[in-house]
Amino acid sequence: MSARRSQAYNRGMPDRFSVVEAFPIVRYEGGVRREDRDEVAREEPLEIRVRGRAVSVTMRTPGHDAELALGFLLSEGIIYRQQDVLKVEPCDRDDGSNILNVQLSPTVAVDFERLTRHVFASSSCGLCGKATIDAVRTQFPKIDGDAGMASETLLSLPQKMRAVQETFARTGGLHAAALFTTSGDLVVLREDVGRHNAVDKVIGDALMKGLLPMGDHALVVSGRTSFEILQKALSAGVPIIAAVSAPSSLAVEFAEESGQTLVGFLREARMNVYANFDRIR
Amino acid sequence: MSARRSQAYNRGMPDRFSVVEAFPIVRYEGGVRREDRDEVAREEPLEIRVRGRAVSVTMRTPGHDAELALGFLLSEGIIYRQQDVLKVEPCDRDDGSNILNVQLSPTVAVDFERLTRHVFASSSCGLCGKATIDAVRTQFPKIDGDAGMASETLLSLPQKMRAVQETFARTGGLHAAALFTTSGDLVVLREDVGRHNAVDKVIGDALMKGLLPMGDHALVVSGRTSFEILQKALSAGVPIIAAVSAPSSLAVEFAEESGQTLVGFLREARMNVYANFDRIR
Repeated sequence: MSARRSQAYNRGMPDRFSVVEAFPIVRYEGGVRREDRDEVAREEPLEIRVRGRAVSVTMRTPGHDAELALGFLLSEGIIYRQQDVLKVEPCDRDDGSNILNVQLSPTVAVDFERLTRHVFASSSCGLCGKATIDAVRTQFPKIDGDAGMASETLLSLPQKMRAVQETFARTGGLHAAALFTTSGDLVVLREDVGRHNAVDKVIGDALMKGLLPMGDHALVVSGRTSFEILQKALSAGVPIIAAVSAPSSLAVEFAEESGQTLVGFLREARMNVYANFDRIR
Repeated sequence: MSARRSQAYNRGMPDRFSVVEAFPIVRYEGGVRREDRDEVAREEPLEIRVRGRAVSVTMRTPGHDAELALGFLLSEGIIYRQQDVLKVEPCDRDDGSNILNVQLSPTVAVDFERLTRHVFASSSCGLCGKATIDAVRTQFPKIDGDAGMASETLLSLPQKMRAVQETFARTGGLHAAALFTTSGDLVVLREDVGRHNAVDKVIGDALMKGLLPMGDHALVVSGRTSFEILQKALSAGVPIIAAVSAPSSLAVEFAEESGQTLVGFLREARMNVYANFDRIR
């Protein structure tokens, strides 16, 4: 264990510029359950402002935020060279606001209509993961049912997905999302180049079938879990979200708040449970 | 080879509802170069309209589009149940327009200001990958330099990335993007929970250092390549884009149009080249 990792373990909470954050987890491996800690990649919102107007809110890992803002403006065709930028500065002086003001040269023309990214309304200087979670939580009810799932059932799901997941094997290029009952029966599986789209397709299918809210179901995704995947599952009332790969810090925090059980690294007869452990039996 | 795969091979172009598309490629494996074909996951834009207004344009794999639209509206808090939806229909009758109109029950309140997704302006009924590429291509110059890269140099880059990529090893949860010179020297590497953010960070770094346009550089990403990754690379003038995983169909088509060389499955001393093969020497 490196000195840095050990420090994160001891401290529990990393500083606000750390790219990782440690959480208590329950680990299942080789049929054994044990409490442990695990580090996950940090995810926090960043709002980019140009001439005082918010032009983008993106969920990012903190660090190199000025470069992120300028790369975004470059790829949107707003700036082309170093001289187009006068200054990039945080909204408040201690740099903890998650808001960056980009001061452009007066010669740069900005067509605000063309800057098309996801922008949440936010007038104040503060923006943080907690506030973002709260905004979503006011929209959708917290999960409080007592639905549970046997660990053996959960561990069997990736194999069931692969059996019906034809395209990934052919292209290696698709994300999959699937809804299962808590007894392990497949309801629907969809694949898409975008992982959010794959989740939209399965919850949209469930809505059309009149299955909402899905209090006794689990959502399994082939990739990583982010804030947005958890939000989509909550909108359908899904209490258990399991992913073949890692969660982000904001996904874990979201699950803690929403009452959802979050599982990561579900593969090869092992998994980590990051939030609301009690649903796994 | 399955009957379906063989059919796609023979036909060259799949129909518009296929989730895969075949392209001619150049394969490097065990030091041998050979021409071949490969299937990649399809990526096409989908515009979702509610009450005649575009509320989202997402890059998705065609198929199950009605479910995608309803899942999106569910997760945005607009609809909650089957009865909220009267009808979902394509913009034109043959269903090839990539535009869906969702007819909601008159009792559903829609706050259009809150529907915050990426929306391109499009007034007509047609929307397709080609038009999306053209819109970007008018913004950024085509790559026409004669920069090249030795195949051995390209094949060595993933190893160089892993050597400096500390966080992934700890969390398994971050995407990486790196810029290299065509002679294989690392310029900058960044990690992020969002792969677009990782690319924004490296091109933003290059902009701040006055390195644009990057005619003699390659961008390497840890995941898959989509339309948007290619667009970001083009905005920085990068002629070679290589990914550890698969490209989408629109990434390949974009590269063909933009003059960029696109490499996929760059790992374990092998790679596939999907467009503008001549730059690899």
